[in-house]
Amino acid sequence: MKVLITGGAGFLGQRLARRLLERGELAGPNGRAEKISTLVLLDVAAAPDFGDARVKAMVGDIADRAVLEQAIDTDTTAVFHLAAIVSGQAEADFDLGMRINLDASRTLLEVCRARGHRPRVVFTSSVAVYGGTLPDVVEDDTALNPQSSYGTQKAIAELLLNDYTRRGFVDGRVLRLPTISVRPGRPNAAASSFASGIIREPLNGETSVCPVPRSTRLWLLSPRRAIEALVAGCELDAAVLDALPGNRRVINLPGISVSVDEMIAALREVAGDEAVKHIRHEPDDRIVKIVGSWPGRWDTSRAERLGLRGDASFVDVIRAYVEDERK
Amino acid sequence: MKVLITGGAGFLGQRLARRLLERGELAGPNGRAEKISTLVLLDVAAAPDFGDARVKAMVGDIADRAVLEQAIDTDTTAVFHLAAIVSGQAEADFDLGMRINLDASRTLLEVCRARGHRPRVVFTSSVAVYGGTLPDVVEDDTALNPQSSYGTQKAIAELLLNDYTRRGFVDGRVLRLPTISVRPGRPNAAASSFASGIIREPLNGETSVCPVPRSTRLWLLSPRRAIEALVAGCELDAAVLDALPGNRRVINLPGISVSVDEMIAALREVAGDEAVKHIRHEPDDRIVKIVGSWPGRWDTSRAERLGLRGDASFVDVIRAYVEDERK
Repeated sequence: MKVLITGGAGFLGQRLARRLLERGELAGPNGRAEKISTLVLLDVAAAPDFGDARVKAMVGDIADRAVLEQAIDTDTTAVFHLAAIVSGQAEADFDLGMRINLDASRTLLEVCRARGHRPRVVFTSSVAVYGGTLPDVVEDDTALNPQSSYGTQKAIAELLLNDYTRRGFVDGRVLRLPTISVRPGRPNAAASSFASGIIREPLNGETSVCPVPRSTRLWLLSPRRAIEALVAGCELDAAVLDALPGNRRVINLPGISVSVDEMIAALREVAGDEAVKHIRHEPDDRIVKIVGSWPGRWDTSRAERLGLRGDASFVDVIRAYVEDERK
Repeated sequence: MKVLITGGAGFLGQRLARRLLERGELAGPNGRAEKISTLVLLDVAAAPDFGDARVKAMVGDIADRAVLEQAIDTDTTAVFHLAAIVSGQAEADFDLGMRINLDASRTLLEVCRARGHRPRVVFTSSVAVYGGTLPDVVEDDTALNPQSSYGTQKAIAELLLNDYTRRGFVDGRVLRLPTISVRPGRPNAAASSFASGIIREPLNGETSVCPVPRSTRLWLLSPRRAIEALVAGCELDAAVLDALPGNRRVINLPGISVSVDEMIAALREVAGDEAVKHIRHEPDDRIVKIVGSWPGRWDTSRAERLGLRGDASFVDVIRAYVEDERK
């Protein structure tokens, strides 16, 4: 089988690629494991060389139908659609966000539909689909009420994936990811970038600005668990998914609910007072507004019934980051 | 000021046009009433001649940006976007539904945005955005979970209108209409067509097929009240709307919750046993599935706070139909 990862040169895309290459197989249409013969990594930038003959890096515009037609054929059993314009950037550049987060997602679904073989499509969504006055714990059936263009575009793509699945065009699965922390690398344009920055930069002896109040509650997932969930989400049996109550093809992944204060305490536990001193507190209204509209916790009973797990504690998350990224 | 009605040759469009011409004015951007100088009725078919110099009938494809650019200029203070592919047809022809219910709505918003004058856009949505396991009474914050392509497309257009409003591109208002009954004319491809047919046809001495069980509960609104709500929805002050709790630019209009049995009893009261004998009961699984996924009642406290009213009883609805359409 072939597998496609859009956003395959990105942080999660590369991690997922590495995991799939290690496994060497993935559940096929009948639920039986099949060998992965080709892993296509499509992105606007070239993915690094994996030194693996199965990997085929493709550079192209994901909103261009011809590019997607080249990337997807009837052997493409699984598509992980990770490519996205992040929240801060989609708010700053409305047209770009619409083009990538909405149009490209729809074109991807259309190309899958045209192929006619009903591939599994795993689509990552976000806390940002929620907003407004929220209950303390967001349930699977809490209304979508995005307060950002990013959240709007993700909510729309979710609705499309559900309808394309209902009609039998694809076998879709939407995984709503908590904010991923700790991401390696540099800050990005996501409004939630600080959720990694205030841990990562201090561990590197660099200053990091925290733009939200210390009481702000975040809903976090480590990269390790995110990759596990993506693979498990793809392998879930369609019948098991359809037997779940609620909005059936959308799964809120388990996270941990942590305040900024608690994140800082965890950093202190792992790396001491010196590290914590690198965090500067400078509230930024634009970010407070976006991040403040997201839920700090959601009900994950459906995910748990499917065997999807979150992290044990934020201290563990930091330790895993140190292990994975700072060897 | 100019006013645009898309779907202006349709049943609601024509009714709304007549009402606006009678009124002669509409609240402008500052809330003060302004004279309507031009009323553009855009549709795929020509609207009938209103014998009124203010009316400008335009025939064109609403998904064609050039057509919308011709229909909307910076004097267009209000847009009533009624054009749509109905539920049954959007289910039968997926691409057509996407093109009109989604792409045309988005293009309309884009043209308004490009004009830069932030017109009021009144968009009609539907019970069909809800579905799945529903509470007895649907609240404004009940999750969107459409079980049809029509409902999906309407839900997406709602999300777009909210975001375009939040960003200041338009001043949008989504009115979720109950099923309109009694519609005049002939049956159409809406899954809910029978909700008018089982009253209208018997009153004409014709047979009508009821495709759902008699216990099916519908959420109905008369054409008179629908037109009142469209005008009032357009004239609502943006500040009043924004002060409401919940998903602020979406308003569930008040309906009456009536079972098919109760509809038939009302018909008997108005037109006697002879009329009722014209109803044949032949369940149609395709329609039972779509209609059965819609809520039979929703919470309308927000609409009521805005002064929007439903009908007093279904007997009154039938009597109003006879008065308006069978003179």
